Amino acid sequence: MSFLTMKTLHSVLGEMKEKFAHIALECEVVGLGQAPGRVLAADVVAAEQSPGFDRSCVDGYAVVSGDTFGASESVPCFLKVLPPAQMGMATKVSVGRGEAVYVPTGAQIPAGADAVVMVEYCEKLSQDTVAVLHACAPNTNIMYKGDDCGFGGLLAARGTRITPLHIGIMAAAGVTDVPVYIMPCCAIISTGDEIVGLGEPLPLGCIRDVNTHMLGAELEAYGCRVTSRRIVGDSFGEIRAEICRAVCEADIVLISGGTSVGDKDYTRAAIEAVEKDSVFAHGIALKPGKPTIVAKVGGKPVLGLPGQCVSAYIVFKMVVQPFLDSLCGISGGLPHLTAELTANVHSAPGKLTVLAVKLNYAGGKFYADPVHGKSGLISHLMASDGLILIGDRREGLTSGEIVDVVRL
Amino acid sequence: MSFLTMKTLHSVLGEMKEKFAHIALECEVVGLGQAPGRVLAADVVAAEQSPGFDRSCVDGYAVVSGDTFGASESVPCFLKVLPPAQMGMATKVSVGRGEAVYVPTGAQIPAGADAVVMVEYCEKLSQDTVAVLHACAPNTNIMYKGDDCGFGGLLAARGTRITPLHIGIMAAAGVTDVPVYIMPCCAIISTGDEIVGLGEPLPLGCIRDVNTHMLGAELEAYGCRVTSRRIVGDSFGEIRAEICRAVCEADIVLISGGTSVGDKDYTRAAIEAVEKDSVFAHGIALKPGKPTIVAKVGGKPVLGLPGQCVSAYIVFKMVVQPFLDSLCGISGGLPHLTAELTANVHSAPGKLTVLAVKLNYAGGKFYADPVHGKSGLISHLMASDGLILIGDRREGLTSGEIVDVVRL
Repeated sequence: MSFLTMKTLHSVLGEMKEKFAHIALECEVVGLGQAPGRVLAADVVAAEQSPGFDRSCVDGYAVVSGDTFGASESVPCFLKVLPPAQMGMATKVSVGRGEAVYVPTGAQIPAGADAVVMVEYCEKLSQDTVAVLHACAPNTNIMYKGDDCGFGGLLAARGTRITPLHIGIMAAAGVTDVPVYIMPCCAIISTGDEIVGLGEPLPLGCIRDVNTHMLGAELEAYGCRVTSRRIVGDSFGEIRAEICRAVCEADIVLISGGTSVGDKDYTRAAIEAVEKDSVFAHGIALKPGKPTIVAKVGGKPVLGLPGQCVSAYIVFKMVVQPFLDSLCGISGGLPHLTAELTANVHSAPGKLTVLAVKLNYAGGKFYADPVHGKSGLISHLMASDGLILIGDRREGLTSGEIVDVVRL
Repeated sequence: MSFLTMKTLHSVLGEMKEKFAHIALECEVVGLGQAPGRVLAADVVAAEQSPGFDRSCVDGYAVVSGDTFGASESVPCFLKVLPPAQMGMATKVSVGRGEAVYVPTGAQIPAGADAVVMVEYCEKLSQDTVAVLHACAPNTNIMYKGDDCGFGGLLAARGTRITPLHIGIMAAAGVTDVPVYIMPCCAIISTGDEIVGLGEPLPLGCIRDVNTHMLGAELEAYGCRVTSRRIVGDSFGEIRAEICRAVCEADIVLISGGTSVGDKDYTRAAIEAVEKDSVFAHGIALKPGKPTIVAKVGGKPVLGLPGQCVSAYIVFKMVVQPFLDSLCGISGGLPHLTAELTANVHSAPGKLTVLAVKLNYAGGKFYADPVHGKSGLISHLMASDGLILIGDRREGLTSGEIVDVVRL
């Protein structure tokens, strides 16, 4: 038998970044309606100031704040009422000492005014007199021009995945179209004599193809187009032919199965038969996920993932997704949450270990129960709420330690 | 001026559930390829056992475990090698005392064997003899039939939003199609004389329509179809006409703006002109979000949201989304995360207060800094990472308190 020479996850991701530095995702410009969920290919700045004028935050009277100093319910100040401001129109009237203009929420503040007294604190005594029952400081209840975003101000940076809130601020700032990346298209090959497609008869000794469905769903959720999903047996020639085809049709190729060093593990040999010396990593110090292959074929990433579906899922999350993130400038951000581990767990020294946990929440605190069971059961992953990582220098974690949790 | 009679958020959501108990979302059956992101309309159970046979978890020799008891590198046990198991085929050979069968990972365990010794612990001495250097207990390295999911076992419950992992386990269990809800279609009306559509000239005193874009993006992200997005001025007749049209075309109508009790706040009157006494809540003890209207028009939910876009966003998250969740059986689940508040904050007693926070992470712990600033700036919401809630009986929260945070 032969052995793998493992590299650390960190070094493999670094090498991938370097080997595929030539990949520049294409981009396109889409309207705001098509933008949610897409990733910005460039910084987006405000096309207009928001608001474009000084606005009232309340229904009330625009005044010179100095007039109200000392005003109270027992000693109101009396102001002369000028014609009111109208919504959606420039306010032509201006306010001087001893004067007030009614402004509905959102209307333009008249020139001369530096505060708005809420209507609740005013009493209109006649057509042209209002009593102000409350003092107000300068700038009270005014949103100034550009307060929300100034012209040219950054609204969202390259590498941002666009949420409805981004849509909101972009609309507010007059942005109609945004540049977004066109995600790479991917081909998925699931290998193994025992793998049978969904809906086909399932002979004894065979199992359903899980990986083209699960990995395909992950890629589509990311925004990638999946060009093909094929199942091939443990045949060197067929795998080689499928890789050739996939490298032609797609930007990235994922192959699951046959990535270890057994007699029938043809994936590495098939990749190298398509392009000699194309494999630059075989074996990652990651558990699960050790038998992983990374190659550069015709300049394109070809990744061999473990056939076992839980391992394939972990490798997708730990290798493929961070690689996609690096292509489109998505940066890591904060951990999802932290939790207190409720039991000692052992890990595999020398490997970064990924462990499934079930979360419990009590008294403002999260607790993470390790989910044990036979490795490779997708049902155990389903019964979990998150994943924790144990570094390769650790032999395990101790009950009571605080761990970062990646939500599933 | 008039005043609102506020109801608690809890009671409004309860009333909505009751008033709209007659709404039964339609459902459709889709293939796994179309299922990710959809919400299950019924429980999904395993169509097949997974695995469908006892499988080896490793490359190794299937043995009667008792034969290996006491075996070690210095005192191996010697077993007779029978023909190997093949991937993807029923294993016909059976194993007795003193015998061993080579099984690759995933192959069927031969009858009679109750453990698999990893190939690393075996040494093949000749064509028909293997030395086992390691004792193994019964059941070692075997995944039994149905271990991952038993026939008829629950894979995912009604109200589950389908993730790639669900796709994985459903494929593993032979499920080809799933029943999913068809989300309600929604019409959005943005009202206000000052509201101007994106891309149109922006006169002084006017602002861009934000709400049809932002709320539309939220609804689409939820899975709803948005049938129309209209802007109308502060005109009772126009708003009434738009509500009529919207109630005919959509399942749910959202109207933003004109929901307070000012002179030009026509939304409530326009709704009641379409159907008398249809408004059953006007005013929610929620900050921001107080001027919210909930009505039942022609049996359909018509919701009036504050025009101010941050308030509209909060009401969407606190009222509309929980209502949609109740329609399709999505249950709350765990909080997103908890954090330690870094400053005292005041709230509005008598109202449930929603406060934006910026998260910091240090030493395995999250800290939430309250984001202050003029209310109603969408840029402040953008600068935040999450929202916290302060109950209506509280006057505020104290620095150092642990708070639940909803990630933005």
